[in-house]
Amino acid sequence: MDIERSPLARPFPDMPPVDGVTLRIARAQYKNWDRCDLTYAELAEGTAVAGVFTRNICCSSEVELGRENVKRGTARALIVNAGNSNAFTGYRGREAVEQIMTQVSDHLGCAKEEVFVSSTGVIGVPLPKDKARDGVAAVLQTEPCGWEEAASTIGTTDTFTKGAHAAAMLGETRVELCGIIKGSGMIAPDMATMLGYIFTDAAIVPAFLQELLSEATKGSFNAITVDSDTSTSDTVLAFATGKAGNPLIQSFDDPGADAFAAALKDVCRQLAHLVVRDGEGAQKFIEVRVNGAVSDDSAHRIALAIANSPLVKTAIAGGDANWGRVVMAVGKAGEPADRDKLSIGFGGHWAAKNGQPLADYNEVPVAEHLRGEDVTLEVDIGLGNGRAIVWTCDLTHGYISINADYRS
Amino acid sequence: MDIERSPLARPFPDMPPVDGVTLRIARAQYKNWDRCDLTYAELAEGTAVAGVFTRNICCSSEVELGRENVKRGTARALIVNAGNSNAFTGYRGREAVEQIMTQVSDHLGCAKEEVFVSSTGVIGVPLPKDKARDGVAAVLQTEPCGWEEAASTIGTTDTFTKGAHAAAMLGETRVELCGIIKGSGMIAPDMATMLGYIFTDAAIVPAFLQELLSEATKGSFNAITVDSDTSTSDTVLAFATGKAGNPLIQSFDDPGADAFAAALKDVCRQLAHLVVRDGEGAQKFIEVRVNGAVSDDSAHRIALAIANSPLVKTAIAGGDANWGRVVMAVGKAGEPADRDKLSIGFGGHWAAKNGQPLADYNEVPVAEHLRGEDVTLEVDIGLGNGRAIVWTCDLTHGYISINADYRS
Repeated sequence: MDIERSPLARPFPDMPPVDGVTLRIARAQYKNWDRCDLTYAELAEGTAVAGVFTRNICCSSEVELGRENVKRGTARALIVNAGNSNAFTGYRGREAVEQIMTQVSDHLGCAKEEVFVSSTGVIGVPLPKDKARDGVAAVLQTEPCGWEEAASTIGTTDTFTKGAHAAAMLGETRVELCGIIKGSGMIAPDMATMLGYIFTDAAIVPAFLQELLSEATKGSFNAITVDSDTSTSDTVLAFATGKAGNPLIQSFDDPGADAFAAALKDVCRQLAHLVVRDGEGAQKFIEVRVNGAVSDDSAHRIALAIANSPLVKTAIAGGDANWGRVVMAVGKAGEPADRDKLSIGFGGHWAAKNGQPLADYNEVPVAEHLRGEDVTLEVDIGLGNGRAIVWTCDLTHGYISINADYRS
Repeated sequence: MDIERSPLARPFPDMPPVDGVTLRIARAQYKNWDRCDLTYAELAEGTAVAGVFTRNICCSSEVELGRENVKRGTARALIVNAGNSNAFTGYRGREAVEQIMTQVSDHLGCAKEEVFVSSTGVIGVPLPKDKARDGVAAVLQTEPCGWEEAASTIGTTDTFTKGAHAAAMLGETRVELCGIIKGSGMIAPDMATMLGYIFTDAAIVPAFLQELLSEATKGSFNAITVDSDTSTSDTVLAFATGKAGNPLIQSFDDPGADAFAAALKDVCRQLAHLVVRDGEGAQKFIEVRVNGAVSDDSAHRIALAIANSPLVKTAIAGGDANWGRVVMAVGKAGEPADRDKLSIGFGGHWAAKNGQPLADYNEVPVAEHLRGEDVTLEVDIGLGNGRAIVWTCDLTHGYISINADYRS
């Protein structure tokens, strides 16, 4: 089945090289297709690494090993396999990952645990060791490539190639942050894992990089949802080569730490938005803003309940300012709320305030807003100061076509 | 928009009268339509009542008042308004409900709190008091009607009329249990509240009726899901007139209590299944069986995570035995599970055992099973003895058409 490019797609941005990062791609032929499907990033000695991983407890061996090895704090290489997720494959799947780690670490003369592996694609089929071995051998011999080629090679069912860039001034030193990501929700034929990688030449200690990445994840990768389903392989890794030569950042007390944190958040948010923009069947990009909850966490859970509601998502797909469905979603979130204090609006126009439809509600500007590609839905819980923003897409016939009509 | 009758529909069953219950219907014209939309059930003096209500905290005034009044344990009348849910309408909505309670209780000479009111339909518009007053006045004057007419009148977006019957022998006394229900998931134009009513001539004390209804709800109304969304008005009420003349049932120690409990469970399960069979766009009725969880509650939550997963539901719609999506859904349920102990099957055929695809997996009988109308999905968690069954339907283009394409 051919899947059309998302109408919400964004062009691949100009992204500068990151000192200490060399990208290469090759064909491992994990599937019978005419494309590169193995991506390799070689990282300078001393590169710091941080990572966040899926909370799905039926996770892949790649996630198990990555979660463990990221604790050591250093990385020398990343391998990404596309076409086979190696998930739910037992010990045979784990052997394939360990083989790759050994092969690459032998080549680089580094610790096996400094080689990070991700896989995405069909599940239940162990990653074929022979194809992995030949593919890795091939990729180590190829010429370096650019960001867009690497971003394209990690993709599977993505309808466009995704990258994001930010720069930050750490005192007098400019550092670059370049990110690539793949994922379009959980998509046919199996699960469209979200795999994201951020590379920077900043010098930063691993523990603080982890702290900043975890914090940035809250307002980005953990604040998006396409269909409430969660891949068994979702992974975001940040690599910092230190080649920019800035004074090492160890905490927020160090000059430039705030600027770096802001740039990292920026890149994470850009990347997260691109995944939503490639949501299966997405026609609209939806921002759900919740204010007035009893806490930020409570607001976040309410926002997710709204963003995951099939009825809210189909209403917006239909251009219907159906605030009743929003009330329903708030009510089922399991968080403190009071029907008679709820206010709901679309695109800056209130439709209901304090539990009742507005007497002078004017549907015209709201309908106009809902016809657009970017929709904002605002909810005021009226109880406290907790707030959160979550992004999602609408639920359309395209989602069903991609996920139900496909037969392998 | 015309919505076609569900392909999973069932004919309305033969249902005997229940002594002490008189049904009437009338036109209140809550909407501009050519049909009856007000249902009245008059109940003999001394009728016991029990109820279960939505957990959605943004619930309607009808639910608030019903939840409060059911504690008194007796009922004399039920009024059901179709076409206007009266939800999210503040004090004006509550006034309309109280007006109906007063009007009916004045007529019957009973306590106001013995009159139960439900409303279903458009939300955010207070139930018009004048139409309610005229409708109630009219219904009190009409000739009694049968079960199917009453069941049809409580319906809104239902594509077929739903009823269920069971009988039980309490010693030498035969008692009847007749149930009617409306609901088809949360459906356009607003929320398709599930409203269910069970009438019996058995003599049973209210507290024990409540205990039995709550228990029966676990394996019926709380074990179904269409799209994970929850109406703000969901209500199930059980009325026992006592006219059968059996010795009053007060606890499981009384003869016939077990038989009555079994019949009540039977009727509740039948009614719950009918709602799933009218799920928006449903083409397949899916039974999700989870065994081997650490507890029954854990099994129930895992089963719901599977039954609510858009990816599992679309896979089954497409006839795809995609056990990988089931693994994903188990993993995201937040319950104890071990990837390497999971087994998954369809229609009695295992596809994966102990965390790995079966070497001799034969797709032919599974594909055959998935082509049918009734699909069974079995999961063994492999950790304990907890088990649960949940019913749902597949997710198809029909769901999107009903919920997104509709414009009021």
